[in-house]
Amino acid sequence: MAAAPQRIVDAVLFDTFGTVVDWRSGVTDAVAAIASRCGVEVDAAEFALRWRARYQPSMEPIRNGTREFVNLDELHRENLIATAEEMGLPVDRIEPADLEWLNRAWHRLDGWPDSVPGLAELKRHFIIGPLSNGHVALLTNMAKHAGLLWDVIIGSDVIRAYKPDPNAYLGAARLLDLPPNRVMLCAAHNSDLAAARSVGFRTAFVARPQEYGPTQQTDLHATDAWDVIARDIRDLATQLRDHAT
Amino acid sequence: MAAAPQRIVDAVLFDTFGTVVDWRSGVTDAVAAIASRCGVEVDAAEFALRWRARYQPSMEPIRNGTREFVNLDELHRENLIATAEEMGLPVDRIEPADLEWLNRAWHRLDGWPDSVPGLAELKRHFIIGPLSNGHVALLTNMAKHAGLLWDVIIGSDVIRAYKPDPNAYLGAARLLDLPPNRVMLCAAHNSDLAAARSVGFRTAFVARPQEYGPTQQTDLHATDAWDVIARDIRDLATQLRDHAT
Repeated sequence: MAAAPQRIVDAVLFDTFGTVVDWRSGVTDAVAAIASRCGVEVDAAEFALRWRARYQPSMEPIRNGTREFVNLDELHRENLIATAEEMGLPVDRIEPADLEWLNRAWHRLDGWPDSVPGLAELKRHFIIGPLSNGHVALLTNMAKHAGLLWDVIIGSDVIRAYKPDPNAYLGAARLLDLPPNRVMLCAAHNSDLAAARSVGFRTAFVARPQEYGPTQQTDLHATDAWDVIARDIRDLATQLRDHAT
Repeated sequence: MAAAPQRIVDAVLFDTFGTVVDWRSGVTDAVAAIASRCGVEVDAAEFALRWRARYQPSMEPIRNGTREFVNLDELHRENLIATAEEMGLPVDRIEPADLEWLNRAWHRLDGWPDSVPGLAELKRHFIIGPLSNGHVALLTNMAKHAGLLWDVIIGSDVIRAYKPDPNAYLGAARLLDLPPNRVMLCAAHNSDLAAARSVGFRTAFVARPQEYGPTQQTDLHATDAWDVIARDIRDLATQLRDHAT
């Protein structure tokens, strides 16, 4: 009665920031809105890039065990304050509720144009979910905002590890009760895919050449022979459809 | 920029077994299928009721701390073997893969007729998810099978507590980063709602008078003044719609 699985994998999980949602536009808009409201001058696009530049380094102490796990709201808040100081944005002129609203811009990001239709197609055949450094509340709010119809949300606060820590990937497979080779990670970042592959995941690259804006230099192309290389999430759905029956 | 919330709550979470899905029919059918396949005689409906009767007692050692957390697949398997012995079903005549298929009948339950449309309506206004003693894999598989469009899946293996342990409810609210009074539990079991209310949740009762079959004696009616008392999940959606704008 147990039919042998025919599909290439059972679950397709996604990096979110950059891969599924366009953080740069969403965060830039939120910074501009707060600056305008407070009557301060700031290069909002540059602010967004610098805020994001602090993201990977801020997780490092947690990855190497010198800091207890805290979630991205916490790290984003610290990084926001540091970026504001760096760029001369007077944080004391922003109301606490507005600062919190700005910090939660990361909960309210929009998908790339192909994200919602591509995920809807994939959902017909696979378990789909984020495998993100975001926490459950952030990812749930983001999904409601952007209309991402995840089947399951795997937050970093559940696994208590930040990618590319191998436990982040293995913990996700364990939660789904799937062996790693029955799970695919889709990401716009080659390094994320390399970490996923090293623990046995299948891998899919989608290019997001505008993630960091028009002058982006990194991750413009797949740098390894990933299982699937797709133009976007719709194309990924099309390519996996052949394996999905 | 932070608008005051207008809705009665932000999230509506659901007990699943009995409240959202009809375990009795699904499990009875699976028992009958296996019995027929193995050429053994068994009262499948009675088997399902006795299997389920072992459910609450089997979680008790975990609730009171005398046993480490194990998930429902584990408990269901132990209870299945015990029920088979009790009813004279020769487990050794069932192939291991078939026994596993039978044990996972709890992953493949159908919703009550109002569950899918009621949840779809609630999803427009609220974060919806299971708050179940099921684990993430079971609840994800169940959602795919039954077409339950959860926003987030809160499994007992994430919280590592079984209801009515207060931590099961509080852990769910914490994961969503919501205060308990911004979360509503919907259940067909008065005792589950009492435990949820005691930690500050809002509560909604839906009657499932056929959960245990036509002779059911318990939970036929709300036994307390819950925030909402609804005929079913569609009716719950209608009643909450007034609060949802």
